[in-house]
Amino acid sequence: MAQQSNIVGEPLKVVGTRAPNLDAVERVTGQAKYTGDLELPGMLVARVLRSPHPHARIVRIDTTRAEAVQGVKAIVTHRDVPKLPVWAHRGYVLNERVRFKGEAVAGIAAVDAETADEALRLITVEYEVLPFVLDPEEAMQPTAPQLFPDGNLAGQPRVLTRGDIERGLAESDRVIERTYHCPTGWSGGMEPRANLATWEGDYLTLWASTQSPGRIVNALAALFDLPEHKVRVIATYIGGGFGTKSANHIDEALTALLARRARRPVKLQYSREEEILDSNTRYETKMYARVGVKQDMTLHALDVRYISNQGAYHIRLGGLGTQSTHLYNVPHLKTEQYRVHTNIPNTGPTRGVGDPQETFGVESVMDEVAHEMGWDPMAFRLKNIKRTGDPVARGGAGREDGRLASHAMDRCIEDGARRIGWERRNPAPGGTQAGPLVRGIGMALTERSTGGAQGAAIVKVNRDGSAVVFWSSTDIGQGSRTTMPMVVAEILGIPLTMVRAVSGDTEMAPYEPGSIGNRTTRGTGTAVDQACRDCLRQIFQTAAPMLEAPADALEARDGMIRVTGQPERSVPLRDVLQRHDRTVVGEGAMVQDQTKLDVERGPAAHFVEVEVDRETGKIRILRYVAAHDVGQPLNLTIVENQIEGGSIQGLALALGEQLHFDQRTGGCLSPNFLDLKPPTMLDVDPRVVEAVVVENKGEDKPFGAKGMGENPCHPGMAAVANALFNATGLRLREVPFSRASILEALSRSV
Amino acid sequence: MAQQSNIVGEPLKVVGTRAPNLDAVERVTGQAKYTGDLELPGMLVARVLRSPHPHARIVRIDTTRAEAVQGVKAIVTHRDVPKLPVWAHRGYVLNERVRFKGEAVAGIAAVDAETADEALRLITVEYEVLPFVLDPEEAMQPTAPQLFPDGNLAGQPRVLTRGDIERGLAESDRVIERTYHCPTGWSGGMEPRANLATWEGDYLTLWASTQSPGRIVNALAALFDLPEHKVRVIATYIGGGFGTKSANHIDEALTALLARRARRPVKLQYSREEEILDSNTRYETKMYARVGVKQDMTLHALDVRYISNQGAYHIRLGGLGTQSTHLYNVPHLKTEQYRVHTNIPNTGPTRGVGDPQETFGVESVMDEVAHEMGWDPMAFRLKNIKRTGDPVARGGAGREDGRLASHAMDRCIEDGARRIGWERRNPAPGGTQAGPLVRGIGMALTERSTGGAQGAAIVKVNRDGSAVVFWSSTDIGQGSRTTMPMVVAEILGIPLTMVRAVSGDTEMAPYEPGSIGNRTTRGTGTAVDQACRDCLRQIFQTAAPMLEAPADALEARDGMIRVTGQPERSVPLRDVLQRHDRTVVGEGAMVQDQTKLDVERGPAAHFVEVEVDRETGKIRILRYVAAHDVGQPLNLTIVENQIEGGSIQGLALALGEQLHFDQRTGGCLSPNFLDLKPPTMLDVDPRVVEAVVVENKGEDKPFGAKGMGENPCHPGMAAVANALFNATGLRLREVPFSRASILEALSRSV
Repeated sequence: MAQQSNIVGEPLKVVGTRAPNLDAVERVTGQAKYTGDLELPGMLVARVLRSPHPHARIVRIDTTRAEAVQGVKAIVTHRDVPKLPVWAHRGYVLNERVRFKGEAVAGIAAVDAETADEALRLITVEYEVLPFVLDPEEAMQPTAPQLFPDGNLAGQPRVLTRGDIERGLAESDRVIERTYHCPTGWSGGMEPRANLATWEGDYLTLWASTQSPGRIVNALAALFDLPEHKVRVIATYIGGGFGTKSANHIDEALTALLARRARRPVKLQYSREEEILDSNTRYETKMYARVGVKQDMTLHALDVRYISNQGAYHIRLGGLGTQSTHLYNVPHLKTEQYRVHTNIPNTGPTRGVGDPQETFGVESVMDEVAHEMGWDPMAFRLKNIKRTGDPVARGGAGREDGRLASHAMDRCIEDGARRIGWERRNPAPGGTQAGPLVRGIGMALTERSTGGAQGAAIVKVNRDGSAVVFWSSTDIGQGSRTTMPMVVAEILGIPLTMVRAVSGDTEMAPYEPGSIGNRTTRGTGTAVDQACRDCLRQIFQTAAPMLEAPADALEARDGMIRVTGQPERSVPLRDVLQRHDRTVVGEGAMVQDQTKLDVERGPAAHFVEVEVDRETGKIRILRYVAAHDVGQPLNLTIVENQIEGGSIQGLALALGEQLHFDQRTGGCLSPNFLDLKPPTMLDVDPRVVEAVVVENKGEDKPFGAKGMGENPCHPGMAAVANALFNATGLRLREVPFSRASILEALSRSV
Repeated sequence: MAQQSNIVGEPLKVVGTRAPNLDAVERVTGQAKYTGDLELPGMLVARVLRSPHPHARIVRIDTTRAEAVQGVKAIVTHRDVPKLPVWAHRGYVLNERVRFKGEAVAGIAAVDAETADEALRLITVEYEVLPFVLDPEEAMQPTAPQLFPDGNLAGQPRVLTRGDIERGLAESDRVIERTYHCPTGWSGGMEPRANLATWEGDYLTLWASTQSPGRIVNALAALFDLPEHKVRVIATYIGGGFGTKSANHIDEALTALLARRARRPVKLQYSREEEILDSNTRYETKMYARVGVKQDMTLHALDVRYISNQGAYHIRLGGLGTQSTHLYNVPHLKTEQYRVHTNIPNTGPTRGVGDPQETFGVESVMDEVAHEMGWDPMAFRLKNIKRTGDPVARGGAGREDGRLASHAMDRCIEDGARRIGWERRNPAPGGTQAGPLVRGIGMALTERSTGGAQGAAIVKVNRDGSAVVFWSSTDIGQGSRTTMPMVVAEILGIPLTMVRAVSGDTEMAPYEPGSIGNRTTRGTGTAVDQACRDCLRQIFQTAAPMLEAPADALEARDGMIRVTGQPERSVPLRDVLQRHDRTVVGEGAMVQDQTKLDVERGPAAHFVEVEVDRETGKIRILRYVAAHDVGQPLNLTIVENQIEGGSIQGLALALGEQLHFDQRTGGCLSPNFLDLKPPTMLDVDPRVVEAVVVENKGEDKPFGAKGMGENPCHPGMAAVANALFNATGLRLREVPFSRASILEALSRSV
């Protein structure tokens, strides 16, 4: 389909194509330098001593023997760190009271890893061991061990309401009540976190594997009491972010502290175990859901109480309630979230944050109520989904104060259903299938903000017509180093090869919060769009006398500046720039128009066909269809890759990836890939995932694209649960659906 | 004196102070990283094979034995270089025909210097030796060896005329005719040139000890047929530029070629000898001057023919004629410059370019004619100098088409004369002094463009009120990394500690031609001024509703944004930025208003008292007073340091620093400090130089400052020659004034 370009009546030339990633060759040939690959002359290696107790007070810490080791250049303990919380963690870089097993207790920088490891063993720590609590509901009891002086609750419960929930439930023809549970999840990428810090006087440069260089500047400037121009953070390539790298953690500050103390560059490269334990996790969530429907198939009331396990510390995040408020029209709604601290590692952003957990609860209970009522769960959803023009609750609050725009959930459902063959599902759950292998089809919906809210960029057009675009967030694999240049090329009317991206460096680029929450496409993209138009304004001013036309009657296309609609009245861009005789610099910033907040959203419908072996409990994913309304795709291949990768990540949650904790010791039992069980190619063949791109050019910049990196991860657990039910008649309300849990459920049902 | 700030009625707070250089600590503690200090993993070391002949054709070059040496990773010869001239050199990176002794013939990159040196010896070159010529007047003869197919003249002669020179001379009451000569001079800094190149795919990063990163981007992009966004040049700290590092040379391209061929980073660090031979030199100049005066002490006619020895290749530069046209009102003028190629190393920019040589000729002949007429040479000059309101010839051409503005040559002469005690000079040259030691006082004037013409900068104001200023030229020791932040601090009304400079990196900053020709203060300074005001405009827009005043009624001062003239109606800048909630990005570009070209100039008067030992020929500089109209000094200490350093460099030319060439072999006899004889502390005690800063706030931005880095180097030779004459009665017309030449002149005069 020919999308409209910024030039009326002409198709897009670059945006919407399948341009290969501009940095693909560097990435696949190993030339791309990740933080861990970097070396600086005189660089030291850091190692971290960690607590063996899930909850304890450090009575005494003696580093004298470690300091005496030849080659040890710096040691820091809780005595040496600024007494300022790290982000909203409620903790310092190192704490006198440790709150999870594996929490950092001391850092050492030495000439090599062996020396640092040796010195680490020579630090003597005397702990006063304290009682600990791992379960969030236990932790809510007044008798539970308390992690903080003001108790274990992290702030007030988050409550969203609409209508009158109790009246809504009373008015319903049928009410069902269910409980769902998602365990603590892993949130990291293939590359464990790494930092390299160096100081020149009071000027700090930190290379970090981070999604959010700008936020780390803020955090370190505050921590070291420096103005922001004294801190530079550079993220080169990073090997997956998924949220773990979107917030600052203790490792950046620890590395910088050690480097300052040692007066030499220091690199801290986390091991896999450290990455899993001391970054952040996806929070465990328990959901108590009540749903009420009317006989006419309308959803009438939805009440969900969430208890989320924030672990020892946490990053303050937007909370749960989004899926409940945004997916369906429901007159009576209440969601309530309790965030509870326990003695497991701290939580934080993880692809989708709480949305995958919430989607599991909401999309399971919708399926359950449809079954109870004898409705086709797809028909039930189609009846109640929000559509373009329906009321929208800005910012996720209960109050509805806008109208949903450009929302193609219906097309996502229809396209997805057609692709999976919805009509093939078992009319009755479990059906009449004989033998051990049974099949079923399930679906789940989700949606999310299209991102944006903030973004900033600079575009520089050289005198030869080549361009460079700067922004401070990182390309975390989502391909922004390709899509942002595509926006530049499209608007400036030049080939993509004439554009280079410089991202992830706070030195030159304006502040951005990072590559988070679907933000880059709309946030940075809008800023890039503006910056390009700022450049064009200057270029058109110089071109105007050359073309004997007013500047506002010009357009840029095919390397030419021309009078709008008159390709014969044109002059090469290069000639205009030669006459301009200086670099053109444009800047742009996206600032969210609050009256349009959440008016445009990104819906998706996922469908899955599973096969269950009733003898072994093994689940096979036969097909997974993920249909997403992505607005105008900036790059079709990249959008498809996001859908495929995110879907697999959602399936991982369903199929077994989990952080297990030992109830007796409080320790994590799966701090490695073997026990954590992220899916391999043998578990989920990526070819089973079919990305369906529902093009639905939105109204927002750039070019009506919607940010969508988080969304594909949301529906996996719910879709698989619903398909399992359709295959076996068994309703699983606890994630993951391990062979053990399936066999146990099968044995119960016999 | 209280200069006006940008806020009417209030004194400047930062500009004009003696703020210490912001990078002083890094520089003096050795923390500052020069290009030669940089290391990259896997880096190779490059070495260059050089021609033993001043003129030869390479018949055969065999590198097979060198290639076989273990550890050799790349070799390039003339066969491997792009067939494009390097800059305006008229030569390629490596040439099949070499034109000076020491010209590069091949480059080798190897794992270490020893390996590269060993391999270098194994390259076999068969030369066809050609006849050579060293003297420019000889080279002008048709029978001379020809360096280029179109002969030895580098372009047409440059001719400037005003009035009718022959009529002017005929009308004069007295005409004298004299010949002056300045030899080929050294132009380097303490740090020999260094380059470090690395390629990522087709993206080249080059660290170079250069004044002009932007120009090198242009040159390398052209050479490698790349768009400019594929080339990044970074100059970190450089150890003196003085022109040698303002133009591209073969070493940047050679390093990049070797790195591309070896697929590894390559560093090429020139030795002192290579730096002296293969960068560029100050051109030898022969001057044939005729001057005519009237009895009423007016200068009536001035005719100078210059023959400059451009060496084997050259950088195209503004030519000679500036001092003749700009210093004095003279109705009949002609200057004519012939640029001639010879078989000595190529020439290029060197502090003051041709102005020191021309000043020597013009200010010697003015002194001579004054003596002939029995006039006080100062009175003669004061009678004829150009003053504010006098006609000015834009661009140095003969046609006078503007009026000189803000020109304080008279104050420079008066202040300088008072300081040196002009009345103490010998009334008659040589005077009646007894004994071997005689003293004398001389003077010389000069002037130059205040620089500018082009400049570009970006200023970023962080959300905490700290700022970063970016420009692409290098701080070559002139202190721009301090003065540009001072402009930012003054305009934004913040302390200097809240500003950081990022210069010398083409990645972010817009194109600038470099730190050349007095350019930075006005060129970059004006751009920085504009960029700051672009920031303020955005800041004022956000502040306006906070202060309930229109944006254009606001001003920035003392970290506050306030209603103009109402300090009680103010709000902290930080609060405004918090509300703005995004980085403020401003950009500025200086584009020369052609109608104002050369309307403002930077005049100076130098005075020197010398002592000559008539027995040994030794000259002692007793006092050296250098009075400069610098407009509004941005930083008084920096301005004084420029005057002192430049004056000593001028004295070096007078006292013996020189490149000698062997007439038989064509080789340079002084490619080292011992034979080159740059002055040490024992030759010129820096304390004898007295900088007199004549503040004379100009009309141009920033703050009426004038660029003046070149000027102090101009008058040394002429002032010393005139003082020598006053001391001894001997007129020396050949530079330098070595002990041998003085003893010879003394023996002739007896």
